[in-house]
Amino acid sequence: MSFQRVLEYAHKLVEERTNQGDIVVDATLGNGNDTLFLAKLVGDSGRVYGFDVQREAIAKTIAKLKIDNLDSRVECIEASHEYIDKWVKEPVTAAMFNLGYLPGSDKSITTKPQTTIKAIEILLKLLKVGGVITLVLYIGHDGGAEAAEVEKYLQTLPQKKYAVIKYRFLNQVHNPPFLIAIEKIRE
Amino acid sequence: MSFQRVLEYAHKLVEERTNQGDIVVDATLGNGNDTLFLAKLVGDSGRVYGFDVQREAIAKTIAKLKIDNLDSRVECIEASHEYIDKWVKEPVTAAMFNLGYLPGSDKSITTKPQTTIKAIEILLKLLKVGGVITLVLYIGHDGGAEAAEVEKYLQTLPQKKYAVIKYRFLNQVHNPPFLIAIEKIRE
Repeated sequence: MSFQRVLEYAHKLVEERTNQGDIVVDATLGNGNDTLFLAKLVGDSGRVYGFDVQREAIAKTIAKLKIDNLDSRVECIEASHEYIDKWVKEPVTAAMFNLGYLPGSDKSITTKPQTTIKAIEILLKLLKVGGVITLVLYIGHDGGAEAAEVEKYLQTLPQKKYAVIKYRFLNQVHNPPFLIAIEKIRE
Repeated sequence: MSFQRVLEYAHKLVEERTNQGDIVVDATLGNGNDTLFLAKLVGDSGRVYGFDVQREAIAKTIAKLKIDNLDSRVECIEASHEYIDKWVKEPVTAAMFNLGYLPGSDKSITTKPQTTIKAIEILLKLLKVGGVITLVLYIGHDGGAEAAEVEKYLQTLPQKKYAVIKYRFLNQVHNPPFLIAIEKIRE
């Protein structure tokens, strides 16, 4: 028994709310780990919409999905997540973000607070009551500026409509990622 | 399904680590709610040591325990938690703190960062590997000064020996309490 790690916690929050047949979003494909996790959750009748601005991330994700023969459950879209609602029109049960840059890739291409916040605003509208948005925030790439700006924005969400939690390890060196999660309580 | 509240989370972390027969500590009896919770967990063969500087808290706690006929499992000690090791000599599985003042009581009597930190240091030595200390921090009584000082101290704990997590709601008005929990990873 030990405290849940940040990524495990994000997965737990999504898993306990998502059922087969649901529509979910991976807002930052990256290496495709969350996409694979989501594709398993929604089953054959569900759908994952995955976004990334980097073609490399799309390719990595599709390759990973093909191993488990799950690529038909996922629509990979080479676009910024600020345009999510051009593709996603249905109510969404869960959306996942990893904020920062694609590990092992071009460190100058990172998520940006303005577009991240825009994507969150769109997803808050699409989100079902009881649905969840998870954000794993890395603070290495910009000294924590993006994380601070996103956190400041989320503090302003009305508590009657949304619950927002933050989960982090306090005593780790090397700026470990932390988790923020948003649940829609009512429309 | 909704995000766990701070008190629920503290109870969950203690519950999943504590077995019948264990020794546990309620470092701040208050109204006796955590004491009752702990007394149920440890069973007839276990032992709860409860501390409070206020006689009123001791009396309220004993009255609460008597209702469920659990008062024989608890030793209530009218003393500051900075002297825990004068009474507790055995390895401890869990310890719980509520930092602030006793609700509905004299608001000038609150926990203090220096004595809280001293109590934590003692408990870290008594704690079993895999054991947990939970702190629910209220920030109304002093504008958050105690919480900030305790948090700063906990950030310095070596990560090879201890994991320290913080769990809080970001978008609630009126300074809701937040949770810090410490797990001993190794001696």
